[in-house]
Amino acid sequence: MNTVKVSIEQKIQAAETRIFKVVFPNTTNHYDTLFGGLAMYLMDEVAFITATRFSRKKMVTVSSGKIDFNQPIPADTIIELVGKVVRIGKTSLEVEVEIFVEEMYQDVRKQAVKGIFTFVVLDEHKKPVAVL
Amino acid sequence: MNTVKVSIEQKIQAAETRIFKVVFPNTTNHYDTLFGGLAMYLMDEVAFITATRFSRKKMVTVSSGKIDFNQPIPADTIIELVGKVVRIGKTSLEVEVEIFVEEMYQDVRKQAVKGIFTFVVLDEHKKPVAVL
Amino acid sequence: MNTVKVSIEQKIQAAETRIFKVVFPNTTNHYDTLFGGLAMYLMDEVAFITATRFSRKKMVTVSSGKIDFNQPIPADTIIELVGKVVRIGKTSLEVEVEIFVEEMYQDVRKQAVKGIFTFVVLDEHKKPVAVL
Amino acid sequence: MNTVKVSIEQKIQAAETRIFKVVFPNTTNHYDTLFGGLAMYLMDEVAFITATRFSRKKMVTVSSGKIDFNQPIPADTIIELVGKVVRIGKTSLEVEVEIFVEEMYQDVRKQAVKGIFTFVVLDEHKKPVAVL
Amino acid sequence: MNTVKVSIEQKIQAAETRIFKVVFPNTTNHYDTLFGGLAMYLMDEVAFITATRFSRKKMVTVSSGKIDFNQPIPADTIIELVGKVVRIGKTSLEVEVEIFVEEMYQDVRKQAVKGIFTFVVLDEHKKPVAVL
Amino acid sequence: MNTVKVSIEQKIQAAETRIFKVVFPNTTNHYDTLFGGLAMYLMDEVAFITATRFSRKKMVTVSSGKIDFNQPIPADTIIELVGKVVRIGKTSLEVEVEIFVEEMYQDVRKQAVKGIFTFVVLDEHKKPVAVL
Repeated sequence: MNTVKVSIEQKIQAAETRIFKVVFPNTTNHYDTLFGGLAMYLMDEVAFITATRFSRKKMVTVSSGKIDFNQPIPADTIIELVGKVVRIGKTSLEVEVEIFVEEMYQDVRKQAVKGIFTFVVLDEHKKPVAVL
Repeated sequence: MNTVKVSIEQKIQAAETRIFKVVFPNTTNHYDTLFGGLAMYLMDEVAFITATRFSRKKMVTVSSGKIDFNQPIPADTIIELVGKVVRIGKTSLEVEVEIFVEEMYQDVRKQAVKGIFTFVVLDEHKKPVAVL
Repeated sequence: MNTVKVSIEQKIQAAETRIFKVVFPNTTNHYDTLFGGLAMYLMDEVAFITATRFSRKKMVTVSSGKIDFNQPIPADTIIELVGKVVRIGKTSLEVEVEIFVEEMYQDVRKQAVKGIFTFVVLDEHKKPVAVL
Repeated sequence: MNTVKVSIEQKIQAAETRIFKVVFPNTTNHYDTLFGGLAMYLMDEVAFITATRFSRKKMVTVSSGKIDFNQPIPADTIIELVGKVVRIGKTSLEVEVEIFVEEMYQDVRKQAVKGIFTFVVLDEHKKPVAVL
Repeated sequence: MNTVKVSIEQKIQAAETRIFKVVFPNTTNHYDTLFGGLAMYLMDEVAFITATRFSRKKMVTVSSGKIDFNQPIPADTIIELVGKVVRIGKTSLEVEVEIFVEEMYQDVRKQAVKGIFTFVVLDEHKKPVAVL
Repeated sequence: MNTVKVSIEQKIQAAETRIFKVVFPNTTNHYDTLFGGLAMYLMDEVAFITATRFSRKKMVTVSSGKIDFNQPIPADTIIELVGKVVRIGKTSLEVEVEIFVEEMYQDVRKQAVKGIFTFVVLDEHKKPVAVL
């Protein structure tokens, strides 16, 4: 039905979640680029908040898809992580997370990493329940 | 001149910076509310990114105005910090930071804290230089 | 009454709280000076301990006054934070916090930052109660 | 040639890397299980050390494969992360990471998570070079 | 009796616990070597896990013996901490912890620090109980 | 000579270093008492600052003596660490560190831990040099 579709679009919009962060030298490796593991940590965090804000239910990560780090994230840049619900299943939810890198002292911005995180809603007995 | 004004408005818009964060129990005090000091730490961080993204120059915090914590931020909520440039001086910049609190499992959201942070741009000799 | 005054003076003296800390390079920004937000975090922490040690009651930060960071705190220095009760209201308490900077390898010490933090005592229903 | 094969087997053996960790309540989410993002952070760390100890060259993560978190990792358990080189390409290396969970106060141990991390060796111009 | 002795040897073997860690520049002091305090923190952690995995009972550190840091642990090395049960008393346990340092980009490894940590098992009334 | 002795006494007095800290539940183990390893970390930190403030030279920890943790440090207490120079050798310095525990909501304070940390001054070639 049309009205439901609209409201889901709006819920998806309202659940979009953004985290900015400065990449300081103490979060980077010996190539002076952000650790892969730290990028994954932040991606799961923004995905979790996005999923929770969409469903307002207790979500838990069940999987992360393949993540490519071909574009390095250097120190002394600013990153923005953006989480967006991209698929709504019966008991699961997929959130796409993108990381954008901005030069600190120039107006340059590009996409660096993208990944999909899947969440489920569990009840007290840890059985999956409906997302919506 | 009008065109300049518009472009500053647009720069302010583009520099608006958002950080979402889950308030987990290990970041809260014995009243189960977010530490005042941690809120201040996050406010300065979002203000610094906002100021840098506006000016694309090396900013340093020179002062924080009075900050009221009358509305407590309980554990198991989600907060959004929003930084916005509100005054542009010759060599300084004022950023207003608001913290909004959302219930994790209900569609409830309200403003909890607001504060002003002032930044200057310094050259290599630590002398103030023009923001724009 | 005189005896009470004396005992409050003594309580204030006994509650004075000190925290020393080395400013390592990983806690400083791109000007190689301590982040404003980290200074505020530490100031709230020492203020909270001072207020608690004075009242031996459950305190919560309600506001911080204007804080000026005109004197930068460089890396490879040692800082001392000192918290002192400066005003005792009916249900609130004001703590002044100073940060002193010492050169690591010379006998040089100066005051860098000063601020006032206000605390209240709350009961289980989060209503303010008497400090003394 | 046989002798080379043996020596690679031995290098793989010698590079196997283990990290034990207690899952304290402050590293777990509202289901009282380890955050997915923290598990990914630790997996990348053990994979990076394994890859470096195998090649003794400067490695960087280029991708993580799909990771399933179907088996939750509860608080008050001990986890062991084990990293092992499983494929050696010309300029890249694949490391398999497993997480095992042990009950703290019983002799119970099972595999909880498994994933593949891919690394490359880069020279100073960030061009891939031979692993061996 | 022989069978018991064997089983204790096997328990000691099975409880041996290893933690690898990269010594990044942000964990080192102004001599660019690992902080003594951080080494002690990690040694207690590996000792605690070793003691718990041996006894599967609630252990608490009661003392650390003299620890010598004569061999510095430089940045950009990999360390391995190894914990091993070395003495089993009635209600206490001694764990020896060694730290080995490996060059990141060469096959060089040597022992850097060694120390003994003593643990006891306590019941709910904080009275010592039998280890085995 | 008398005047020198007096000045060393004064230097020792001036170098006395204090760190207060709240023992929050997230820094405690399953007995709800401060981790031994965290206590050691903090003791080394206060000892290092004390040694540096006495000598104003680059100090490095060479050993810690036996440390007894017989008196547990429970959550929701305030601790004060006090460092004091107790022996001055030719090229080394001994600092005694005590930890005192205060009840948060009562005027109760007692000594919990005591330990000796030894430091040396090293020149650029990592050879010991005179402390005074």
